[in-house]
Amino acid sequence: MSQRYTELELVRRIRQWTGPTTLTAGIGDDCAIFRPHQGQELLFTTDFLIEDVHFRRDTHPAAAVGHKALARSLSDIAAMAGEPRFCLLSLALAPWADKRWVDGFYRGFLALALKHDVELAGGDLSHARQTVCDVMVCGMAPNGKALRRDTAGPGDRIYVSGPLGRDWRKHLKPNPRIDAGLAIRGKATAAMDLSDGLSIDLARLCEASAVAARLDFIPVRRGATLEMALHAGEDYELLFTMPPRRKPPRGSLAIGEIVAGPAGLVTLHGEPLKPLGYTHF
Amino acid sequence: MSQRYTELELVRRIRQWTGPTTLTAGIGDDCAIFRPHQGQELLFTTDFLIEDVHFRRDTHPAAAVGHKALARSLSDIAAMAGEPRFCLLSLALAPWADKRWVDGFYRGFLALALKHDVELAGGDLSHARQTVCDVMVCGMAPNGKALRRDTAGPGDRIYVSGPLGRDWRKHLKPNPRIDAGLAIRGKATAAMDLSDGLSIDLARLCEASAVAARLDFIPVRRGATLEMALHAGEDYELLFTMPPRRKPPRGSLAIGEIVAGPAGLVTLHGEPLKPLGYTHF
Repeated sequence: MSQRYTELELVRRIRQWTGPTTLTAGIGDDCAIFRPHQGQELLFTTDFLIEDVHFRRDTHPAAAVGHKALARSLSDIAAMAGEPRFCLLSLALAPWADKRWVDGFYRGFLALALKHDVELAGGDLSHARQTVCDVMVCGMAPNGKALRRDTAGPGDRIYVSGPLGRDWRKHLKPNPRIDAGLAIRGKATAAMDLSDGLSIDLARLCEASAVAARLDFIPVRRGATLEMALHAGEDYELLFTMPPRRKPPRGSLAIGEIVAGPAGLVTLHGEPLKPLGYTHF
Repeated sequence: MSQRYTELELVRRIRQWTGPTTLTAGIGDDCAIFRPHQGQELLFTTDFLIEDVHFRRDTHPAAAVGHKALARSLSDIAAMAGEPRFCLLSLALAPWADKRWVDGFYRGFLALALKHDVELAGGDLSHARQTVCDVMVCGMAPNGKALRRDTAGPGDRIYVSGPLGRDWRKHLKPNPRIDAGLAIRGKATAAMDLSDGLSIDLARLCEASAVAARLDFIPVRRGATLEMALHAGEDYELLFTMPPRRKPPRGSLAIGEIVAGPAGLVTLHGEPLKPLGYTHF
């Protein structure tokens, strides 16, 4: 028979799994307490991972769901060239989520947290008709060094941190590019992560920066199509801009140039490119 | 015909409703950026508000749902004697949530945010079978001044910030006691908010502090029963402890004393009190 956790049992297990806090206070009180260092600004992001919206129970093993729940938010920290520090996990469990599934979920979540040195410092537990995770990550960057998406300028080259076109149905454990974010800190003029697809995400970066973009080259991942590279979501690579004289980090691929023009317009081979990536409603 | 927002429409509306950010960066980028002041520690809390778990569509108007979604997290900041600074709102909308409902939700949410000077700095939007909100609030307190629940000691008097026993089905717009939290900063030895009921919450405070408690007097709100005052959740009053020589703030009500004894044991009139408050699974 499948067993379910009581709330108290699960809180105790989570405290065992996570160990002592490195914050001033962690799991178990009303709030987590964090004392920031001087000279650092803090980055905050939160992302849902919802059953039948962002994952499917039959195709995603529990550990992959836990991994992905954290990876989505870490990718936002990477996009701003931050170092992740701690996270809060809100988890509402569907009736089918038994102990075995919950254990697997936390195993995947905490393995990725350990890899990136992110402490699980708190959160909330509840139940719902479908399983819903919401993960808040707090990251850090030296004052003024976080990369934004509204600061690209005409003449900047456009890069991605790797080839595009992952099939998200097969791509169960995406790797948030914290390394790539840190490598462009102090060098890039603007950055964001490719979570909804190049066509829509580049349009968003251009709109925020009040510029247009000309795409010259699309680096298609082996086994993917051009369509997938342009419009598929969840690549988790970084999209960034840099003045032409600056050398991008190893592994970066030049894809085009920021140009003066209607805010948000992206062209490929002289034709406007429709933003066909993922939208959430 | 009832109309639903597209994601882009809703993001634009939220930016109109919230106005310019007071943070380094707010809504619209991958992360919100916050530059903390030296000498202050930061408090982090997150709370779900889920349809048919924490609210019901037929009894809670949209504005009351928005209010309550934020009030729950603000109450945790109050419990640690913090001042709220900004929040992230993750909102997954059920198919029934039309523009009218969403507008009402944000009206209630932002009215409470304005009252407590809390900026909405970001979040996530999605859809789900039932409406799910998750609200992260970041608060501040001078270094070392945040109140915890694991620091009560034998001999401390136990207080609540007001009479108990609200009927949460009728109590649509709870008032997070930020004022009461600030009034006991630097005075109380331990504090928490009463969100699940006095009997279970006091047992938690005692367990965290490795002490027991003797209740002498239960301040029952007019119209409530003793049972409600002991076990009903969502009072949103603060529970705190203070050395006997210290004068509690106006409006506080003495309810008993912290004693040496088995961690978490609460007695009322000499008998052990069973923790019957709300649990989440």
